Amino acid sequence: MNAINLSAKLACIKDPWSPKIVGELNDQYVKLVKFIGEYVWHHHADEDEMFLVIDGQFDLHFRDRVVTLREGEFFIVPRGVEHKPVAKELCSVMLFEPAGTRNTGNVNHAYTIEPDDLERF
Amino acid sequence: MNAINLSAKLACIKDPWSPKIVGELNDQYVKLVKFIGEYVWHHHADEDEMFLVIDGQFDLHFRDRVVTLREGEFFIVPRGVEHKPVAKELCSVMLFEPAGTRNTGNVNHAYTIEPDDLERF
Repeated sequence: MNAINLSAKLACIKDPWSPKIVGELNDQYVKLVKFIGEYVWHHHADEDEMFLVIDGQFDLHFRDRVVTLREGEFFIVPRGVEHKPVAKELCSVMLFEPAGTRNTGNVNHAYTIEPDDLERF
Repeated sequence: MNAINLSAKLACIKDPWSPKIVGELNDQYVKLVKFIGEYVWHHHADEDEMFLVIDGQFDLHFRDRVVTLREGEFFIVPRGVEHKPVAKELCSVMLFEPAGTRNTGNVNHAYTIEPDDLERF
């Protein structure tokens, strides 16, 4: 039961593509993550995923289009839909998703962090 | 599958204390709401509720303390905990909570909007 300041939490995050848990409610996690460069194509079979841009911007690639998300914009990727975030510059993002969501979804990759191994910031 | 701009959605919201649905995922709603003045004491028996300040600030009253939340800060109120938002000036807030959450929780009040009657913006 504490107020969480997004900027203060983000200042503690050094590694890109490594989501940190900053809140938990109703079996969902609130995570903060920094994007820079290109992520990996993946999907989440059973989880919808929300991306809210806190600072900067990034491109959310789909197989048939690219959506640019800027500060103060969010996008909900439905379960099963392949996507790939790409950030030309450092970008800070809040994620909302079920607690069991695996960051690289169906794909094993150097960026993979199993849900049980996620750090709480 | 569209990008949602928080400022654009907020510009459409005229009535205070009247949450609008702007996103849905994993049986949770993302809502936007404007606060001004004093709300009603209430709790949600079965739902945790997240308040993220998009613009302005407000005081989240609990029976034993008051927490001021400013732009870029969030708070998760656990289920069962009585609370009452109070905003001295107009404040814009994002809510994240289960789809079935009733805005005034256990209390019937002029501000009550049943979950099925919530507008989508």
